[in-house]
Amino acid sequence: MKVIKFGGSSLASGEKLQKVHQLLAEDLSRKIVVVSAPGKRFAGDAKVTDLLIDCATKRLLQEDTEAIFAKIIHRYRDIALDSDMDLAIIEEIEKDLTLLLAADTNDPDVFMDKIKASGEDNNAKLVAAYLRHQGLEATYVNPKDAGLFVTAEHANAQVLPESYRNLYKLREQPGIIVFPGFFGYTKAGEIVTFSRSGSDITGAILANGIQADLYENFTDVDAVYTVNPNIVKDPEQINELTYQEMRELSYAGFSVFHDEALIPAFKAGIPVHIKNTNNPFSEGTKIVKQRLGSSRPVTGIASDGGFCSIFISKYLMNREIGFGRKILQILEAHHLNFEHMPSGIDNLTILLRENQLTATLEQTLITDLETELKPDSIHIQHQISLIMVVGEEMRQNVGITARAAKALSGSCVNIEMLNQGSSEVSIMFGVSEEQEERAVQALYEEFFVQVLK
Amino acid sequence: MKVIKFGGSSLASGEKLQKVHQLLAEDLSRKIVVVSAPGKRFAGDAKVTDLLIDCATKRLLQEDTEAIFAKIIHRYRDIALDSDMDLAIIEEIEKDLTLLLAADTNDPDVFMDKIKASGEDNNAKLVAAYLRHQGLEATYVNPKDAGLFVTAEHANAQVLPESYRNLYKLREQPGIIVFPGFFGYTKAGEIVTFSRSGSDITGAILANGIQADLYENFTDVDAVYTVNPNIVKDPEQINELTYQEMRELSYAGFSVFHDEALIPAFKAGIPVHIKNTNNPFSEGTKIVKQRLGSSRPVTGIASDGGFCSIFISKYLMNREIGFGRKILQILEAHHLNFEHMPSGIDNLTILLRENQLTATLEQTLITDLETELKPDSIHIQHQISLIMVVGEEMRQNVGITARAAKALSGSCVNIEMLNQGSSEVSIMFGVSEEQEERAVQALYEEFFVQVLK
Repeated sequence: MKVIKFGGSSLASGEKLQKVHQLLAEDLSRKIVVVSAPGKRFAGDAKVTDLLIDCATKRLLQEDTEAIFAKIIHRYRDIALDSDMDLAIIEEIEKDLTLLLAADTNDPDVFMDKIKASGEDNNAKLVAAYLRHQGLEATYVNPKDAGLFVTAEHANAQVLPESYRNLYKLREQPGIIVFPGFFGYTKAGEIVTFSRSGSDITGAILANGIQADLYENFTDVDAVYTVNPNIVKDPEQINELTYQEMRELSYAGFSVFHDEALIPAFKAGIPVHIKNTNNPFSEGTKIVKQRLGSSRPVTGIASDGGFCSIFISKYLMNREIGFGRKILQILEAHHLNFEHMPSGIDNLTILLRENQLTATLEQTLITDLETELKPDSIHIQHQISLIMVVGEEMRQNVGITARAAKALSGSCVNIEMLNQGSSEVSIMFGVSEEQEERAVQALYEEFFVQVLK
Repeated sequence: MKVIKFGGSSLASGEKLQKVHQLLAEDLSRKIVVVSAPGKRFAGDAKVTDLLIDCATKRLLQEDTEAIFAKIIHRYRDIALDSDMDLAIIEEIEKDLTLLLAADTNDPDVFMDKIKASGEDNNAKLVAAYLRHQGLEATYVNPKDAGLFVTAEHANAQVLPESYRNLYKLREQPGIIVFPGFFGYTKAGEIVTFSRSGSDITGAILANGIQADLYENFTDVDAVYTVNPNIVKDPEQINELTYQEMRELSYAGFSVFHDEALIPAFKAGIPVHIKNTNNPFSEGTKIVKQRLGSSRPVTGIASDGGFCSIFISKYLMNREIGFGRKILQILEAHHLNFEHMPSGIDNLTILLRENQLTATLEQTLITDLETELKPDSIHIQHQISLIMVVGEEMRQNVGITARAAKALSGSCVNIEMLNQGSSEVSIMFGVSEEQEERAVQALYEEFFVQVLK
């Protein structure tokens, strides 16, 4: 039994829906289909979700919503017309959205979530009708009826554990289940949406709930790549990677997938297969709990800029019990998250994302650190990039750090920071942002290109 | 103007004192002589300080001190006899020690410090008399009269800042000043000793106080070596190293010098020259604030065992504001110093000296961490060694990390941890204790042997 999720661009037109039908018809173990709202059909096209946000905003500002409302309904209608479907479903969608827009707007967050969620909800109804029109047994299922309950955090709902038990019952329902992504209901019956990648989250929750054998995630890229294609031209694809590897790569800005969205599936040990709707013959990328060894020690390389480091030195600081704790307490008082805290002899560096700091906050922070710690010196360095070199095989392979460091020095990249912990499947390098691309290229060359020669 | 300090083995016999005389006679800028208590004359011999501790302990236990007292006086007498000196000085020493032993023993710490300090104090009197006997103008100066004031922390005195101003006046005094090492006086007139390497501390304080051009530290080794001679046979000597390099090497168990002892000299930017009394023609090692560049990127390698690491992993830990702070707070509550806290994605390792832990404390600590942090996993690894590769030139040299890591992997040493921060003159490797020697040998081979070939 599989859960299959389609992104917005895979559901943007009648033509795209044909591919969806084909995928479901050829493999009846694809039991639950999770749908997004219709996405872009072409560059410059609008996503239905964006139109809905626009519409809801106008309503909240008491502006005219007629034109934008028509545009939204047209998107659904175009899909139905493309597919020679009965337009009764469009009337149903139109009625639903009219009702929703007429709802109470006293709490703008509640109102906004309702309107946003309708994009997925109505598209699920449309896709179910389309699949029936194509001769498949398919039923739209509403998250409330299925028991997908969440917390009341608008735009950041967290699934309630009891949902999994409720969703397990979907296994018994005959035919294909078409399920809207992106939202759930509070126990009080209020719609609340998930954070970004919300449909991925719904799919992962369902995969966990029904104890799926596989969670297939159809999107518009062929695979997860070994390195950012904007930095290295035509990089290799990753065919298989572990949850842990995915997590480490995502951390440093691997953008194909927001790994947190997949947690519910990971927790149940369910493999996730990322595939391209437009190119279903491409192998895609499978994310698994464990995988067989690979001849290649490095699975992928990721990088992310926007970090800064605060260097603090004080003679004999490690004799002062509480020195490190005081630093972290000051960060906490300013609601700052730190990422890493590497230390030398008599010095210590705090690495944090610099978007948390304003010039004023930075000054206050430094002053507080100076007052509290009386360091010998303190200074802040901006625009640092972190580069992650990731691979499960690195646990066993003693020479990887040496090769990586050599590749960087060979390209005249200055390693500002190097962190390799125990029990790790990654090495982290800190470099200046301006050297990031050169560094990533050198590492890719070392671990992916040269081995092929 | 120079301060010259002699260790106990350099003052252990009349023959040794001849060398001291020669060194002072040939360079009259050697203004202040800091002396230790007489040390060992041969393997198995007793140091006077140890005899004094023994004697004081017997007195505190109300045991008979006659035999040990005689043994102590004999050590001084032997030196005087060797040198054909008038024995009046020995009578003076005998009287002094008799008086001290008769003193109040209500506070054992106070009593013990008095007796211990007498080893240096009486030897300074003896050395001054000896130098006069040899025709030099030499005066014994008592720390109280010179104004060397310290805190009342017995066996761990800290110098009071006003001492430096007082000591500056010694510049005006004619002739050679013979000054006892190891102790100072509280403002109330009580004797308090320094921690280990106490005479080194006195020398460094005097060098700072009189604004010496050089602090010469005569001991019984030719130089500071590039690596521990117990691990690598006949290693090269270091001719010159910076304060910072010395500090980093000392941290990881470089035992020739306890770097903290030299701080007062370092603070005033005074160079320290370590030389061998028994081999004054050997170049020795100079410790300076800054040095000219060297063609060699690594100055020295040091290592130290006895560390353990606590590995803590928890998914998304860096989103939890206060996670790191809580860990450090728990350590603090148990009065534990941590050395380093490297972190990966979703995990963090605490490195600490394992002599701080008992089996019970370890268990309590782990339980507390589990209760407070609810980590996904936590485990402790024992018997870790830290290896420091140190050199000022590393700031500029991008390839050192690569070379070091390659040397280790080439010797099949598994790098458990690697930490290279910004603005650092060192790289720190964590390896298992059993791989420590092999690792140090491989690094020595890489940075010191191969370059000579």
